[in-house]
Parts: sequence; structure tokens; C-alpha cells
Amino acid sequence: MSAAAELIQDVAHLGNFELLTPKLEQSVWYFTEVLGMTEVARTGHSIYLRAYGDYALTTLKLTEARLPGAGCISWRAVSPQALKRRVEALQKEGCGIGWSNGDIGRGPAFRFTDPDGHSMEVYYEEERYVAPPEQRSTLKNLPQKFTGRGAAVRRIDHLALLARDVARNRAFLENLMGFRLREQVRFDGGKTEIGSWLSVNPMHHQVAYVADVKGGHGRLHHFALWVDEHQDVLRAADILAENRVFIEAGPSKHNNSQGFYLYSFEPGGNRIEVYSGSYLILAPDWEPVTWNEEERGPGVYWGAPLPQSFLEYATPDIEPGQQDQQSTYATIPVFDPR
Amino acid sequence: MSAAAELIQDVAHLGNFELLTPKLEQSVWYFTEVLGMTEVARTGHSIYLRAYGDYALTTLKLTEARLPGAGCISWRAVSPQALKRRVEALQKEGCGIGWSNGDIGRGPAFRFTDPDGHSMEVYYEEERYVAPPEQRSTLKNLPQKFTGRGAAVRRIDHLALLARDVARNRAFLENLMGFRLREQVRFDGGKTEIGSWLSVNPMHHQVAYVADVKGGHGRLHHFALWVDEHQDVLRAADILAENRVFIEAGPSKHNNSQGFYLYSFEPGGNRIEVYSGSYLILAPDWEPVTWNEEERGPGVYWGAPLPQSFLEYATPDIEPGQQDQQSTYATIPVFDPR
Amino acid sequence: MSAAAELIQDVAHLGNFELLTPKLEQSVWYFTEVLGMTEVARTGHSIYLRAYGDYALTTLKLTEARLPGAGCISWRAVSPQALKRRVEALQKEGCGIGWSNGDIGRGPAFRFTDPDGHSMEVYYEEERYVAPPEQRSTLKNLPQKFTGRGAAVRRIDHLALLARDVARNRAFLENLMGFRLREQVRFDGGKTEIGSWLSVNPMHHQVAYVADVKGGHGRLHHFALWVDEHQDVLRAADILAENRVFIEAGPSKHNNSQGFYLYSFEPGGNRIEVYSGSYLILAPDWEPVTWNEEERGPGVYWGAPLPQSFLEYATPDIEPGQQDQQSTYATIPVFDPR
Amino acid sequence: MSAAAELIQDVAHLGNFELLTPKLEQSVWYFTEVLGMTEVARTGHSIYLRAYGDYALTTLKLTEARLPGAGCISWRAVSPQALKRRVEALQKEGCGIGWSNGDIGRGPAFRFTDPDGHSMEVYYEEERYVAPPEQRSTLKNLPQKFTGRGAAVRRIDHLALLARDVARNRAFLENLMGFRLREQVRFDGGKTEIGSWLSVNPMHHQVAYVADVKGGHGRLHHFALWVDEHQDVLRAADILAENRVFIEAGPSKHNNSQGFYLYSFEPGGNRIEVYSGSYLILAPDWEPVTWNEEERGPGVYWGAPLPQSFLEYATPDIEPGQQDQQSTYATIPVFDPR
Repeated sequence: MSAAAELIQDVAHLGNFELLTPKLEQSVWYFTEVLGMTEVARTGHSIYLRAYGDYALTTLKLTEARLPGAGCISWRAVSPQALKRRVEALQKEGCGIGWSNGDIGRGPAFRFTDPDGHSMEVYYEEERYVAPPEQRSTLKNLPQKFTGRGAAVRRIDHLALLARDVARNRAFLENLMGFRLREQVRFDGGKTEIGSWLSVNPMHHQVAYVADVKGGHGRLHHFALWVDEHQDVLRAADILAENRVFIEAGPSKHNNSQGFYLYSFEPGGNRIEVYSGSYLILAPDWEPVTWNEEERGPGVYWGAPLPQSFLEYATPDIEPGQQDQQSTYATIPVFDPR
Repeated sequence: MSAAAELIQDVAHLGNFELLTPKLEQSVWYFTEVLGMTEVARTGHSIYLRAYGDYALTTLKLTEARLPGAGCISWRAVSPQALKRRVEALQKEGCGIGWSNGDIGRGPAFRFTDPDGHSMEVYYEEERYVAPPEQRSTLKNLPQKFTGRGAAVRRIDHLALLARDVARNRAFLENLMGFRLREQVRFDGGKTEIGSWLSVNPMHHQVAYVADVKGGHGRLHHFALWVDEHQDVLRAADILAENRVFIEAGPSKHNNSQGFYLYSFEPGGNRIEVYSGSYLILAPDWEPVTWNEEERGPGVYWGAPLPQSFLEYATPDIEPGQQDQQSTYATIPVFDPR
Repeated sequence: MSAAAELIQDVAHLGNFELLTPKLEQSVWYFTEVLGMTEVARTGHSIYLRAYGDYALTTLKLTEARLPGAGCISWRAVSPQALKRRVEALQKEGCGIGWSNGDIGRGPAFRFTDPDGHSMEVYYEEERYVAPPEQRSTLKNLPQKFTGRGAAVRRIDHLALLARDVARNRAFLENLMGFRLREQVRFDGGKTEIGSWLSVNPMHHQVAYVADVKGGHGRLHHFALWVDEHQDVLRAADILAENRVFIEAGPSKHNNSQGFYLYSFEPGGNRIEVYSGSYLILAPDWEPVTWNEEERGPGVYWGAPLPQSFLEYATPDIEPGQQDQQSTYATIPVFDPR
Repeated sequence: MSAAAELIQDVAHLGNFELLTPKLEQSVWYFTEVLGMTEVARTGHSIYLRAYGDYALTTLKLTEARLPGAGCISWRAVSPQALKRRVEALQKEGCGIGWSNGDIGRGPAFRFTDPDGHSMEVYYEEERYVAPPEQRSTLKNLPQKFTGRGAAVRRIDHLALLARDVARNRAFLENLMGFRLREQVRFDGGKTEIGSWLSVNPMHHQVAYVADVKGGHGRLHHFALWVDEHQDVLRAADILAENRVFIEAGPSKHNNSQGFYLYSFEPGGNRIEVYSGSYLILAPDWEPVTWNEEERGPGVYWGAPLPQSFLEYATPDIEPGQQDQQSTYATIPVFDPR
């Protein structure tokens, strides 16, 4: 799918995210009791969750691991034909790993990695959630009863991934998966691509690539879940505080994406965002908004600058001694990986 | 584009709506001072407006007319190729009227009517709004400064059209324009299609067809504009009340669409909605939610039933004596045209 | 305390309300699971509850009874001296019943009835809530952990009582208890007092007297609990709907009081309001706002008129046959008891 | 009025605040166009403003001055008798300056200074605002039409004053004016009183005294205006940002007071807060909540720590060289003057 050809939208949305955690049960507590998700299945070292507004059976898979970080990122194709097209494109570029038999709630999936090493897959078959009687909503168009438990996140939203080479990974998703660039941070007179926000539909972004200042690869900056109202994000901050969950930043408003954010750490060490606001992008010929050093500023529209940890910490973490001094971004003084 | 074939999304979104009004200047007052839109151009009998979050130069055209109602409904195609495909499909079915030279802010457009007689067009070329200095936002990704004037609507959202034959018009947009059905109201054991909500993107709907109980054709039920927060809808009600604009219904929450609504009448007599909430539909294989008489109930999730006027009044209005007694829906006791 | 003399504020606030219910356990479910209150004690036929923001140990007492309605209404005095002054004033007028030994959480209380027969008491000694460790908030100035359970009401707010003679009961609370009149509905050129809203502090009202159109006495129109934000009231409506609790009216905004209301019925049959908004009255010489028939209108600032049940139903209910035809208000066509 | 005697509430509320500004017209722009207040009068070097929900004619007086800072702080008494009592008490302590003839909107006022040198007065007669036709609200109980202009503040709320000796000034307002202590920050095992929040009614505080780390006197930390909803504070931040007004801190939530804050600087250099949330204090025997160094932390419940400027800057400003090294608080490392 070259940029010159007509755009065909083969990927529908982020279907599922696998989050690695060294503290599985505490992580489940965070996502179910604090954020308000529901557990739907368990197998071996993994626990499957969903948010009340997700149409699929499961959208978040917590997998026990030695270190926290991103497991597999699953993109749902819009049709079997679209899936076939994406697989062929990936195979042609030699990026594919091969087919898996799917997972709980999903059919066969084609595995691949992005250039930075994040594990991804694309699939079509999805099991729709059918609520048991006690979870049935009084709203026929709501998949699951709204209980208001904890922060009561409605659905999974997006991912921010670190990369040693933002431009290369951004181009990979554009060219092979049909993502479109929405906003970008470029330093050095436009020469250094610091962050790129990409989407396959009118939602502002499903994924962002941001420079890994520590020169790691395959790392996760954050995983975001949606609530409908700004007030829900403020309420989530109260809920997090009462549960003694450390809040790293927010509630506040980013300049790029206009997202209303709240970042905290789940017990496994991964950064999780409760998110609302932002804006839909309906223009088929959207011109990406590019921010330079000055325009980008502290990465916020109003409110306090993001803390240093936000710029430096990702999962799995890299100790200072292990840092790759050859990283393209090693000398970048400041940026915001959202 | 048959239902069996692969879905190709050729229409991007509702690009522009032309609203007919017998009181042009008062209507401009309503949309600019009360709802907070901005005037961008005037020509002869028309005045062109935009909302601060719309990317296009203009999205609402007010045209002086003897009677209120819907003028032309403009759909933007995703690409020149998509525009060509849609025109060919329309011509093949003999529904086309022909090309216009476009309008302020838009390039050539192909005119057609839906089976009920609503005037529509499809186009690709769109002029992006470039804010003059005093209208420039401090947010680089916001097309225009947020002043908070009046209800401060962010963008145009959707239309509800009345039709003598909902099924036929619904199928027309599905088959010839690639709309997908999201929700539906069906009475009489599913036999009578009372209302259908359709969309070309993850937004819940851009257009709804609802049974015209008075047997008219080409009529408008309402035109909706978006605000980001439920609280903005409540605030809009205060603004409307202070400006002595009659509020017909809301703020309250529909069951279908989950929309948080507020209906008032602009001075020309058209019903206008300030709208928020609802939900995104991301599933490419979404199964339309169907409501029968009982499930549909009063059309609200909570709050008071919609008033009788909501079920009977549309623009242009039809006097009791002029009502078509042969209408399919003439005996329908109650429904909600949202 | 005559109107001419200097105003001395002897009553601090509504301290406790006893609600009678024929379905004690279901009522507890409603107040704890749906509204989010906490049970703190049980004795015989009563269960004691509190909201997370109430400073006192308990603020709502549910008592099993054959019929629903208002039990005892407890007003807290500002000091022992103030309590003494109020008791002397009540005794002087012959309104007193006598001292009780207090109740769980409260010291000795002096019982009396208002002219309409509602049971009241005034007391000073109050037990402060000390949260057990698992209920301790991370906010040192919040009495109890905010869990966000259900509608998560913050504190008890006010009562609306029906009366055969609004003027007489209003004057009773003004003269003997130091309440001040905030707003009033007067029909017939000001001659007929339909409703009066009274307060002892800057909160808009702690109690309203409204004409009992059925000629009963001692009846309860509703009991209200506070949430901080309009959005919390909207969220409460979702919570009520998901729990299949019947919503009678709202969320919407009253004209008098500017209260943002949501009325539902707890399982025992009493009308309960989740309430926010309104306004503080800081002026010591506040001139009561008086609404006539036309100004009062449907009792709402915007939104649908209040339903007929709102005007007719109170607890305990009066069957049509038992209605007192001699009631002053028997011929009043419409009013709103808020 | 000693602490042992019965509490009599002689002061009703903060009636008026005079703010000094070296840039009078720009300050008027900030308060009217950005915050949404209304100008009601002009005399010589002063301009009189009001917020749409204030019952009095005017509540904020902007006075041209060489340096920014607090002018006169006017407290309204609950009655003529109460005014007399306060004047006698002040005179007895030798704190009084004498009577003024009042000001626009107010009758005779008795001037005095607090121990730190802030100019204050107490008065009773207040002119009620009567809206001209174009400013009349459709709500009979709202003093002025709600236009929603700018941040649309509803009423003035409170003041934070710096003091060389917090304890002495706090005791002054308690003993001579009947203020009650709500919350307090005490360092050094309780020995050093860093900040005290005081009120004369159920609102959390009308005034706070906070340690002046630069050893000045009579200085202003901030003046706060109220909006009803958290969402209004977020919206105010957007409005401030679009008007290029520097936001120092927030929107975020304090731990003490639970206030939801947003601090910016008006063009004259004074810090202004747009404020909502917090909580009412109804208990007549409220036990002040005391925070030590650790509990106080960064002064926020969640969100970023307050910036250094918040701790150091007040009006009029004190240059480093002019700082009083003998100040009691000169070595205090950190505190939050809210």
C-alpha cells in the first residue's frame, strides 16, 4: 500500500493487547477493582479481561512474565479479504512470523514484529461478548451492564510504544498496515522524528511511536483506556488516590492529541493511562500536524510539565548502566512520548 | 456495492448541510450567538457558517427560503477514485441529477436525491479552513480559536430525515453510498421499519431515516451539532433558556444511540440538536441493534418521554388537512425519530 | 424568635433523618448498593447508614414500618445554649413532646411535632464518625474513603414535606427554630402559599413545605442526598437504570432552587432525590423569591414538565377514596413540591 | 468573643474585595472578557465589577496603583447589631481606624487592619443588584443573565493572604471577627503555624493566612472566584490558554480544602484562582484538620506539585535583595499558600 495509491482501510481497530506483568494477581486487582474491568477467562499464566463497552469477548490479556512490558498487539482486520491482503503485504516484505491458531475470543492470527521488535498480529475472526444474565445491561446497545465500579473504563483505546527509530516504525505501519499519520513531533528543523501518532480510523490514534532515549527496543510507554467524560478522568484520580496507586501525571491536557490524560502505574510496573477528550479526525486527506521543539514545549496544553519519569521510564525498564549510548536519541534533552 | 461483496468505504463523512430558513438573519443569530458558530461567507441568499472544530472552511449553509427544511446534504468522498465509484453507481441506478460546479469551500459535486426526495450530493475537493490571526488557536491542532461563545458547538454531527418508506431509503444509502446500519426500530414483529440509523465511519450515525407519520417527503426532523461533554449540553440548555429559545426536549439520554440530546427550534422553525455522548462503533461486522415496540418504549433511556411534537413536527411542516392519509405510517401511534 | 428581633442562628443543619419502610432489607440495598451509602449499625427494626462525606457517625436511619413515610427529623443545634433556647421556645408555645435519651450517634434530643404532624427533634451532642482502617480515606479532611460505589452520594441534603397548611408550618419553623425563607410559590395573587423553601444556613434549603393536595398530614414528598457534580447526577441515572430502579423525573433542572434533580423510588415506596447544583445564599437580608402561577410554570427551568405522580404521590400514600375533600388545596390544579 | 464563650456569628461573608493593579484597563479586560464579569461603575481610578451570581451590586473593585496587591477587604455583617458588636470589639482592642462613608454599593464601613497590615472593613448596608432589562435572567432567582462569556465565574469566593505571623493573624480573625478555623498546616511537631484556613459560614474558607517566606507584610497570595462544576474549571483553562494568559498551576486538586484549583495571573500581576469543588462544613463543633510536613506534602491531592513560584511569589512582589532575613519563616523550605 504505497502512499501514492488509493487508500484502502484494511485494519479496523486495536483488537487486543497483551500486557506482561511480574505480579499477575496484583495487576488483575488494578484492572478489575481500580479500573473496573471484568475478568472473562483464565488459562495457565494468562488472565483475560474486558471493559464494559468493548464489543469483543476480551480486549486485554494479562500474562505473567519476569519483566513488565508489551506482549502481543492484535489488530483486527475489516474483513477476511483485508486480512489476506495484509498478510500478503507483510510476507512480501519478509516481516511475517507465521500464523497462530488464535487465542480466546479470536480466530487465526498472523504474527509479525515491527522493525523495533514489538510483537504484533493481525486477525479477523472475533468472538462477540454475550453477557450472562447478571451482567446484562438494561441498554440493548451496551454489551455489558454499567456498574460504575472503580474508574469504570469503557473500552481499550490506544498504545504508545518506544522505538529506536521512530521514522522507520511509523513508515512500517503506514506502508504495510495502512495506518495514517495524525500528528508528529520533529526536532532539529524537522530532521529528527521524535514521536508519531497513527490511526486506522477517525479516532485520533491507536498507536504512537516515540523515541526511546535509552536506546532499548520493543518497549512500552503506556497503554490507554477510555472513559467518556473529563469528569470521569477526575473521578478516576480520586479512585486511584484512595487505592494508593501512584499517579505519575495528570489529570491534565496534552497539546498534541488534545487528550485529557491521567497516568498511573499498575502493580506490575507498566504505565497505564485513563484517557478522554481528544478529537476525531474525519478528513480523508488530513495533513499531519507537526510540532517542533518550541511548539511542543512541555507536551501539555495547560497544567504542569510532565515529570522526568514520563520521559525516561518505560517497560521493561533499562538500568542506567545498560543504556545504549549509540542510540540515535541518546542526546535528546526532552520529549514527551505521548 | 452489494451487501455480500467486500465493504469499501467510499464516503468519509457528512461534509456540509444546507438548511433552509424563512428568517435568515434570525437563524444566523441563533447559530452564531446562541450556538457559537462563525460566519465565513455570504452570497446572495445564503450565509456560510462553521464550528470551531470543523476542519473545512464551512460546514453549514443557511439559505433563505419560503419554508424551513433541508436543502442539500453534502457527503465527502474519501478520494477522487471513491467519488468516481459513487457517481458511477448512482448513475447506473439512474438516481443522479448531474454535476454542480461546487460551492464555497467545495469542488465539483454530483447531485442526486434519495428515494424520498432529499437533495444530496457527493464531492471530494474541500477547502481547509485557515484561521485569520484573530481566530487562530493556541493549539496547533485546533482549526480555530475556542472562544466559548454561546453553546460553543465543536462540529456538525448528523441529520435525521423523515421518509415515507424508511426501508427503501435505508437500502439506498447502504447499497449506493456504502452506509452501514447501526440501529433500527422495527414494529409489528419486525415487519415495519420505523427508523434506521446509518453511518460511514465509527461515529454512531451521520444520518437517520425515520417514518414520516404525516406522509410527507423530503422533510427534515433535525440537524445535530456536537459538544464534547455532557456538561456542555447542560450548559447549552442554560444558554438557550437565557436567550428565550424554546427547548422542546432534553437534556436527556436516548436509549438507541445512547445520545445525550437537547432539542430546540432555530428561529426559522427547524429542529436543532446539541448532542454529545453516544458511542463509537469499531466492529467491522457490527450487528445492527434492533428495537421492537416494547424495547423502544418512549425512546429515552431515562428522563421524561419525548413530547408529541417531537413525533409529529418536521420541516417543512404539514398542516393536518394536507396530511396524506395513504401514508404507510399514518396509523403508527408513537415513535421517536432520532 | 420574632422576625423583628435580631436573627440568632440556633440550628446548624439537618442532622439525621429517619425513613420508614415496609421493605427494610430492600431499602438497605437501595441506599448502600445503588446510592453507595455505608451501614454502620443495626438495632431491632432499624438500620443506621451514612454517606462518605457526612461528618457524623450516622445520618440516615431506616426503620421498618407498615407504611413508608417520614419518621423523626433531627435538627442539630449549634451549641448547648442554642439547644436550651430552642427547647424553651418550643415549650413556651406548647409544641414540645419531651426529651428522648438520644439515639445511636446522638445525645439527648427534645421531641416535638410541626403543626402538620411531622415528628421532629432538636439535639446537640453528635458522635463524630471515626473510620475503621479499611474505610480510612487518603484525604485527611474526608471522613471516609471514597469508593465510588453506586451513585456515591456524598451527604444527606434536604427534605420536602407535605402540609395541609404551608403558611402555618413555614411560620412555625421560622419563629420557633430560626429557619429563614428562601423561595416561595404563591398562587391566587399571592394569597395561597403553595410551597416554601427554608434554611438555617447558606445552603439553599434543608426543608421545603409543599401543599398536600390530598389533604393528608405528616407526609413525605422526598428526601434528598447530595453529589458534587451535575455529571454525578447523570451517572446516578445510569446506575439507577441498570439496577432497574424506576426513575420518576430528571435528571433536569428546577427553576426555583436551581437544583439539578433526579427522583426515583426506593423499594419501600419513598421518593428519593439525588441532587446537585442549586446555589448558596450568603445574604443575611435575603429577600425571598416568590413565584406566581405563571412564573412557576411546570416547576422546571428546562426539560420536560414534572409528571403527575410528582404532584400527587407522597408517603404514606392516600387512596382516592380516602382523600380529604375539605383540604385547602384540594382544587389546586398543579404545583411542584420541590 | 473568646473561644470559651458561645459562638455568635456576626460576619456573614466576604462582601467585596479591592484589588490593586498597575494596569487597570488590562485588568478589566481579564476580569470581564476572560473571566466573564460585568462592569457596573467607574469612579476616578477605580472600576467596579460583579459576577453574574453575586447578589450585591458589586463585589470586586479594581483600583489603579503603582504596585499590585490587596486593597481593602470588606466583610459584611449579618445585622446592624452585629456590625455594632464587631466595631466595639475592634475598638476595644485598639485595632480600629475609623468609619468611612461607604463606597459604591455599600453603606458606612468601619476600617481596621489585621496585625499583618492588610486593610479590612466591616459594614452592613449593601445595595442589591437590580439587573437592567438586557441583563435580566430568565431565572427569577438568578440576579443576572448567564451569558457564558469567558470562564463565566459565578461569584467571588475567597482570599489567601500572606502574613509574617500566621498564628497572630488567625487568632485576630477568630477573636475579633468570629472566624472559625477549618484546616491548618503546622510544621516542627506542631510548633510552627504555616497556614490557616478560616470561615464565618459553612463555606470551607473565606480567607487563608499563609506564612510569608520573604518576610513581607500585607501581601496577597491570591483572590479566588467560583464556578459551579469541575468541568467549568477545565473549560476556564482552555479560555485562559486561548487568551494567552499564563497558567501557573492546575487545574488540579488540593489535599487541604479539597479545592479544585486553577491559578493564573491577571495583567496587573496578581494571582487569581478559578475555583470549584471543596466541601461545606456544617458541624458547629468542627475540629480543625491539621496537616504536618509529611501529610501536607506538595499541597496537592493528585497531580503535579505546585511550582516554586506558587510558594514564593505574592503581590506586591519583594525582590531578593529586599527580603527580610529576620522573618520567622525565612528558612522554611516549602509550603503551599492555599
